[in-house]
Amino acid sequence: MTRPHAGLFVTLEGGDGVGKTTQAALLHEWLAGEGRTVVRTREPGGTEVGVLIRDIVLHHRGEVAPRAEALLYAADRAHHVETVVRPALDRGDVVIQDRYLDSSVSYQGAGRVLGRDEVRELSLWATDGLLPDLTVLLDLDHARARERLDAADKPFDRLEAEESAFHDRVRAEFLALAQAEPDRFLVLDAAQPAAELAARIRSRVARLLGESVGGRG
Amino acid sequence: MTRPHAGLFVTLEGGDGVGKTTQAALLHEWLAGEGRTVVRTREPGGTEVGVLIRDIVLHHRGEVAPRAEALLYAADRAHHVETVVRPALDRGDVVIQDRYLDSSVSYQGAGRVLGRDEVRELSLWATDGLLPDLTVLLDLDHARARERLDAADKPFDRLEAEESAFHDRVRAEFLALAQAEPDRFLVLDAAQPAAELAARIRSRVARLLGESVGGRG
Repeated sequence: MTRPHAGLFVTLEGGDGVGKTTQAALLHEWLAGEGRTVVRTREPGGTEVGVLIRDIVLHHRGEVAPRAEALLYAADRAHHVETVVRPALDRGDVVIQDRYLDSSVSYQGAGRVLGRDEVRELSLWATDGLLPDLTVLLDLDHARARERLDAADKPFDRLEAEESAFHDRVRAEFLALAQAEPDRFLVLDAAQPAAELAARIRSRVARLLGESVGGRG
Repeated sequence: MTRPHAGLFVTLEGGDGVGKTTQAALLHEWLAGEGRTVVRTREPGGTEVGVLIRDIVLHHRGEVAPRAEALLYAADRAHHVETVVRPALDRGDVVIQDRYLDSSVSYQGAGRVLGRDEVRELSLWATDGLLPDLTVLLDLDHARARERLDAADKPFDRLEAEESAFHDRVRAEFLALAQAEPDRFLVLDAAQPAAELAARIRSRVARLLGESVGGRG
């Protein structure tokens, strides 16, 4: 399998608290040891334009029309991909990104304000069709993820039960996306030890780098 | 012919200097005299979100990726339509707007960075498919429009010649859009006296208001 760019584009997906940051750091460390140049990024991606866009969405929360909000996030993604991700991939770097279009589609699908296919198409237009070479989905039950985020041992109230139902839907959306694109996704049980997860990810990344047109592996 | 809303959505299109503001004012005056409630607007439309978006595009001119810029303008349009135009149309008001999606498509088509069909689809998604009930295209040769904008009588230099070629393409794009949707467009020769143009526009608007589900005409 060949790729349209010399580098490798890896995204990490899953809910909050599943360990995306930990795995990104472990993968980064290993790749650096292998002599690879790594760009770790996230959206708003640290671009000045991205920060300004995020300010609008957050500052006006609840007052920005849903389609306007989706378009603003897509604009952020378009700018980030064009100015950060593609240049890195063209240089042959490995890009490790925390959340990308699968998050947009899954959260939108779970919230059901806009259609998930529309949101996916919008993202693909924004990025001129850039899909990750590998998407690691760290799959975890929301209650377990929450335990990691918040050690407080209190009973669920009604709002928390609603939130929990929402996160269950997000998880189901992520899993459906992974099922639709099995070649791109690596689905891992995030309840496993971090070192084991890291080994599984390294193994897949090493294989992809070996297959790369511009790869040195 | 019936419309999906009680009000009437009229847009004015054409290059700078063709007389859009004058015709908007004359139409507004006549409608007010007829007892109609009129909302005159333009994009960024005076919404706070629109102003912030426009600030990003203008402040970062030349540094915002083309797709990001198109998405930002679409976000502005989505917010403006959702919070200003649709509520007015639902109340039964007449909305007179200076420039709308036909400007985006024509200027993009003339510049040829992004596809005009893509830009049209993006705008239609942003607005959930809202098209004007009537689009008045004030058609004028760029040199004549320029005379109105700038009385200075100096010879064209090279940059001005390039600009002139661009404006010729914009004009051709507008005319092509009008030809594709003859029912929606009213194409007028903007070199005619303002009072004559106003009479033609009034006549068409009166007919549309007479056909309106919610119309009083």
